[in-house]
Amino acid sequence: MTTSSDLSLGRRAMALLDELARHSDESGRLTRLYLSPAHRQAAETTLRFMREAGLDSHIDPLGTVVGRLEGADRDAPALIIGSHIDTVVDAGRFDGTLGVVLGIVTIEALRAQGITPACPIEVLAFGDEENARFPTNLSTSYALSGRYNPAWLDGQDQDGVVLRDALTRFGGDPGKIDGIARNPARYRGYLEVHIEQGPLLEVRELPVGIVSAINGITRARATVIGEAGHAGTVPMSMRRDALAAVAEMIGIVERAGSTRSDTVATVGVAQVQPSAINVIPARVDFTLDARSPDDAVRHAMVQDIVSECEAAAQRRGVGFTIEPFMDSPATPMNKNLMQHLEEAVESIGAAPLRLPSGAGHDAVAMAALCPAAMLFVRCKGGISHNPAESITVEDADTAARVLIEAVKKIVV
Amino acid sequence: MTTSSDLSLGRRAMALLDELARHSDESGRLTRLYLSPAHRQAAETTLRFMREAGLDSHIDPLGTVVGRLEGADRDAPALIIGSHIDTVVDAGRFDGTLGVVLGIVTIEALRAQGITPACPIEVLAFGDEENARFPTNLSTSYALSGRYNPAWLDGQDQDGVVLRDALTRFGGDPGKIDGIARNPARYRGYLEVHIEQGPLLEVRELPVGIVSAINGITRARATVIGEAGHAGTVPMSMRRDALAAVAEMIGIVERAGSTRSDTVATVGVAQVQPSAINVIPARVDFTLDARSPDDAVRHAMVQDIVSECEAAAQRRGVGFTIEPFMDSPATPMNKNLMQHLEEAVESIGAAPLRLPSGAGHDAVAMAALCPAAMLFVRCKGGISHNPAESITVEDADTAARVLIEAVKKIVV
Repeated sequence: MTTSSDLSLGRRAMALLDELARHSDESGRLTRLYLSPAHRQAAETTLRFMREAGLDSHIDPLGTVVGRLEGADRDAPALIIGSHIDTVVDAGRFDGTLGVVLGIVTIEALRAQGITPACPIEVLAFGDEENARFPTNLSTSYALSGRYNPAWLDGQDQDGVVLRDALTRFGGDPGKIDGIARNPARYRGYLEVHIEQGPLLEVRELPVGIVSAINGITRARATVIGEAGHAGTVPMSMRRDALAAVAEMIGIVERAGSTRSDTVATVGVAQVQPSAINVIPARVDFTLDARSPDDAVRHAMVQDIVSECEAAAQRRGVGFTIEPFMDSPATPMNKNLMQHLEEAVESIGAAPLRLPSGAGHDAVAMAALCPAAMLFVRCKGGISHNPAESITVEDADTAARVLIEAVKKIVV
Repeated sequence: MTTSSDLSLGRRAMALLDELARHSDESGRLTRLYLSPAHRQAAETTLRFMREAGLDSHIDPLGTVVGRLEGADRDAPALIIGSHIDTVVDAGRFDGTLGVVLGIVTIEALRAQGITPACPIEVLAFGDEENARFPTNLSTSYALSGRYNPAWLDGQDQDGVVLRDALTRFGGDPGKIDGIARNPARYRGYLEVHIEQGPLLEVRELPVGIVSAINGITRARATVIGEAGHAGTVPMSMRRDALAAVAEMIGIVERAGSTRSDTVATVGVAQVQPSAINVIPARVDFTLDARSPDDAVRHAMVQDIVSECEAAAQRRGVGFTIEPFMDSPATPMNKNLMQHLEEAVESIGAAPLRLPSGAGHDAVAMAALCPAAMLFVRCKGGISHNPAESITVEDADTAARVLIEAVKKIVV
């Protein structure tokens, strides 16, 4: 596998990331919530990066930073490269920001190579991907396909601040959101580079991977009602132990996720009542999070989990209810764009692994506007949403070169 | 099975129970903690009951109500009938108090029948069985065999009240505890009647049962350390899910308790961290409570649980630690006294079921002084430590007649 002789693209990306990481709402750690002062500062720094790269740039009414490089044919459908600059609380510096920075580095490289693209290229820095402040999800990217729900403006953060007011204070304009929507006919595709947030590339010893689909998600809350009793006096055969029942159900969930390809199924929460060492548990509330790149597989997996849990509950004489509250479909990535990414990966001598994305991304929203694809970059230990989030300068360099190669295939 | 024609013994017991149930530290529910004002009132009411029954009675320096009926031979080893009058918070009216009241009803019946026992009979109403206020356990009954630990006087309740001060305020005397200790040679046995606090008698459709042993108890706290991760991005095969591991361990505990005779094993507490729907659990702390009438069986059971949990942890790549903090031996009941109780049960036409006691009782402490045995009385749904605790007047009557028959076999 070749690398650029001096890792100049990787180093450039790291330098831009360093500068953006200075903008935080909290001292001592990185927190950059949608429409916060740190988000404003990061947006202005990004705007400066874009202008210095030669992009015609502005901050849109929802806070997204938009830079545009005109192509030889100004009317040809444009390519978008994007990701987000908001973060979770106590975040790492790569989640989201890496994809924005590599978009800018790509423009710099094309211009340095004297290339004028056949069509326009836009670089976008979204601001509402992490769902860490308001009860919105991908609102800034959904706005591009006209899917912004005006009710989102009434959402409040944990301090009671209304999104509409925060947007106005940020310098945005709630009255001009409709104008953000683009004409799908004017766009040929969307590319997003993002850290993997999982361990697969590290285990496979690969710097990058091509996302096959962004997984669909089912989320549910479940409750088992048994009967409390004295842990010393109720014989095992007469118990209706809610926790023992849920233990069996957690095993069912684990097996359901493990026996299918590319699926995951997780019980992340289990709350026991009354929670005393000498009392048989009367009630356990637990959660289910099940994901798959294939909606039919996911629905079948959840149905199997529910059926097996119901059978276990019946056998044990405990009550079992489960309430799904999220059924978010999978987003397959565009085959043509995946092919371009695959050839770009091969052109630098790496194996082109395809893998599903377990987490959601702006690409989910952008797929409603135009064909979308994603490139994952190996991150240390698969860790994200954590200050320990880390990638190497070599991998940043590789990702930049793959992105530049793919963009060239699409726009030159 | 015969009952007394008018249920007079059962009705008398219920009347005394009604009167004692009026003494509570809280209005609207029954709470009578050791050395509280309600305990003092209940002790004085019990003292009056005993005196009216013809017992030479007093309240001892630890608050135990002591009544003595001299026998034909004042120097013959005495029989003790006892239980406790303290309760848990929001208690039922039968746990403990039933055994005290039936002791008094027995004396009343013997006197009504003109019987002078061959040896003295003492009726005792202990005050510290529930471990609901101070960090003591059976302190008032352990004092009778000289096992009162003076350090117990320094124990504090949740308001910071020191036991020594509470005892003085109650009217007790911390300086005279040594004088409570009895000479084992002067006692022939201890009988305690208590509600079962479990469902076995109800299921077997029996009014009473003979306790074979009070179970030994192992208690432990265990911790599983796995690794947090994104519930969407970490493949099942790469997870070290602490909750999935504990679910397997709960199954191990349940099977260990179920596959042996007369054992129980319970996980009553399981606390998950970080406890988020989309985060793989990193840590779970849980408890183990394992009981058996046979200490060797209990130790083997706990050893099997620990070995199997260690194997599961190793297979899953998670850390597992377990810290036993209680290893309380079983207390076998005295065979001769059990035989007397068995014959008394048969004499009224009931089947003499022997069953272990899963809960601890004053009989554990009294077994250190003299031979001890217990009679269990059926309670509705096996429910105790709850206002719903309930027995029938028919079963109270049956228990009284069995106790009177057994006492006659021992002292006449």
